[in-house]
Amino acid sequence: MTRAMDPERRARLVLSLIGEPGDPRLTGLVAELGAVPVLSALTEQSEHGELREALAERLRAARPDEVLAAAERRGIRFVTPADDEWPTSLDLLSHVAPLHDRGGVPIGLWLRGPLRLDEATQESVAVVGSRSATTYGTRVAGEIGAAVAEAGVSLISGAAFGIDQASHRGALAGRGPTVAVLACGVDRAYPTAHTELLAYIADVGLIASEAAPGCAPTKIRFLARNRLIAALATGTVVVEAAVRSGALNTAHWAHGLSRTLMGVPGPVTSATSQGVHQLIRARNALLVTDGAEVLEAISVAGEHTVERPQGVVLRRDLVSAEERQVLDAVPVSRGAPSTSIARAAGLPVPVVTSALKVLAETGLVVLVSGRWRAVPDPGATVPAAPPGQGTLDFVP
Amino acid sequence: MTRAMDPERRARLVLSLIGEPGDPRLTGLVAELGAVPVLSALTEQSEHGELREALAERLRAARPDEVLAAAERRGIRFVTPADDEWPTSLDLLSHVAPLHDRGGVPIGLWLRGPLRLDEATQESVAVVGSRSATTYGTRVAGEIGAAVAEAGVSLISGAAFGIDQASHRGALAGRGPTVAVLACGVDRAYPTAHTELLAYIADVGLIASEAAPGCAPTKIRFLARNRLIAALATGTVVVEAAVRSGALNTAHWAHGLSRTLMGVPGPVTSATSQGVHQLIRARNALLVTDGAEVLEAISVAGEHTVERPQGVVLRRDLVSAEERQVLDAVPVSRGAPSTSIARAAGLPVPVVTSALKVLAETGLVVLVSGRWRAVPDPGATVPAAPPGQGTLDFVP
Repeated sequence: MTRAMDPERRARLVLSLIGEPGDPRLTGLVAELGAVPVLSALTEQSEHGELREALAERLRAARPDEVLAAAERRGIRFVTPADDEWPTSLDLLSHVAPLHDRGGVPIGLWLRGPLRLDEATQESVAVVGSRSATTYGTRVAGEIGAAVAEAGVSLISGAAFGIDQASHRGALAGRGPTVAVLACGVDRAYPTAHTELLAYIADVGLIASEAAPGCAPTKIRFLARNRLIAALATGTVVVEAAVRSGALNTAHWAHGLSRTLMGVPGPVTSATSQGVHQLIRARNALLVTDGAEVLEAISVAGEHTVERPQGVVLRRDLVSAEERQVLDAVPVSRGAPSTSIARAAGLPVPVVTSALKVLAETGLVVLVSGRWRAVPDPGATVPAAPPGQGTLDFVP
Repeated sequence: MTRAMDPERRARLVLSLIGEPGDPRLTGLVAELGAVPVLSALTEQSEHGELREALAERLRAARPDEVLAAAERRGIRFVTPADDEWPTSLDLLSHVAPLHDRGGVPIGLWLRGPLRLDEATQESVAVVGSRSATTYGTRVAGEIGAAVAEAGVSLISGAAFGIDQASHRGALAGRGPTVAVLACGVDRAYPTAHTELLAYIADVGLIASEAAPGCAPTKIRFLARNRLIAALATGTVVVEAAVRSGALNTAHWAHGLSRTLMGVPGPVTSATSQGVHQLIRARNALLVTDGAEVLEAISVAGEHTVERPQGVVLRRDLVSAEERQVLDAVPVSRGAPSTSIARAAGLPVPVVTSALKVLAETGLVVLVSGRWRAVPDPGATVPAAPPGQGTLDFVP
């Protein structure tokens, strides 16, 4: 043993080595009784028969002190709920029923990298999605990753191909904190093509896993991992997911945990957007179109507000409704006298005459040989309306 | 006069010729007092000074009997709330405040075509959107138009370029009823490039307008027209709309009238989808991805239900959770003995042994020289799960 260890911590270390991540039998018992009595029961062959039988072989093979010492030599630490950097967000998992037979608060986490897990997830966005993403999806994921990073908010993802990779890269490009949560040990690179990406994240960000060092990724470990991403992140954004995508599992955890769930839409003709569209339709996921909207959704009110696209501000926007009505009745090419404009506008002649004066000053109409002509609107140079106002205004 | 006419009807005919469509001063007075006293007031120069002055010139020029006779010779009819084919849906407009200075129940409508307006709008979908639509948008609008038509539901739109045209064409291709609501007279083709389209709709469907025959389209008439589309249709779908698109005006009317408002998403990188995304975000428009979802949204429960995309059903979906857990622990290439699989799966050896038997029968594993190997899943030949079940299931 590298140092004297608290018995609860040591029991959690052993359970972390022998149990499957997110096994609800184990996480449930530990939440109820604590790790020490659970480990005793498994060792003493007295209770929990099936679980004991299942884990007996692994328990015999477990070398906790060696594993921990080797991990620590490689810069990997094991943290439990007793540690300062344990994020309270993970405790939410004790209130949610298992999904696909995975669930509960993790017994411990293995971490690698300079960031503190609690700080790096305090205000954070998870971006998840299809491994077989389209160019569109990876572009949007990268842009969201960068925008989140530039706001100093952490980007959490799973380091997989496609959307995960693009979002981590975006966050790294934006020089922001990024956390990769893996289904395998934090010392392994999965997929192997992401060896350099993961090494870089370990240098500047954080890699986390419920699976012990050396563990290979398996399907149930991906399922267990997905719940951690959803629990750690303040909000989860799904960018592209086919109807059977694993990203939807993460989304369901976010929904179940009452975390902010967001989805980026795409063409309805794209199979990789179908799952996202279903989330927006059926799970009430918030439709988001860029990083600013993501930040707005996860933030306390007003911290990251979005200036929505307004379209060009036209000079006609700046005149009164009545003046616009007159303007609409002014012909462009041949022009017309004010009496004829009054008839077309359905307004009294004096009203039209004074409106035409204002419109001439604004540069929207011009008087040529006694006939008023409309002038193409060159646009205004005034600032756009403040956010939330006039957003859904229009020119027919 | 072509025939003896009820005084209210005749007063509405005159007001239809002299008033601007959707002028809330006129529609409000007529709703309150009836058309006869309003027309008297305008004629007798006693009340409503400004409105009277504005309409005086048009009133002097109005030739109602001639206009009606000429219209009827051309197959155009004038209908008022007293007519059987007047849809009650239009009366909803009396409860909603004007938008952009247009509002109220129309004083009368001019119709051209074999369909009855009440029947043709009883169960109907409006599809509206950008005139400068993309190939993506016109494709989706056409598909929705066709799906709606094939279900025998009417397709309402505005016969404009882009989304409008594509949706009408889709409905005509689907041999369903289609209604074009215009901002100009029903005898005019606007845009002129749609002369043949409108002639065809007049032959098999219906063209409707609040503006009298001969009237040109103006901006305020488009605004007035948009409210009719929203009121007539059971639900309105916006397919592509930039942030200043006129289609958003129709959407706001649908929202204000508490009609079903739907939006088709698109790439977040496409300017013509921005307005739709804002509707889904800010106006709670329902995200729809195809005609089936549109029909489901406007229908009484169960009439048009959607079978959502399920993805391929895999053989692994058909085995128990425990058998899947064993399967996940079976290596693909070199294979492994059952004891090693049991350790990897975290399950007792007897459980693993019996699970491997089931998996071998299902064709998911094979025993080669005493080692179990996983076989690529060829997919099942059983039917997919019923709608609503397993939709958000996944393979990580």
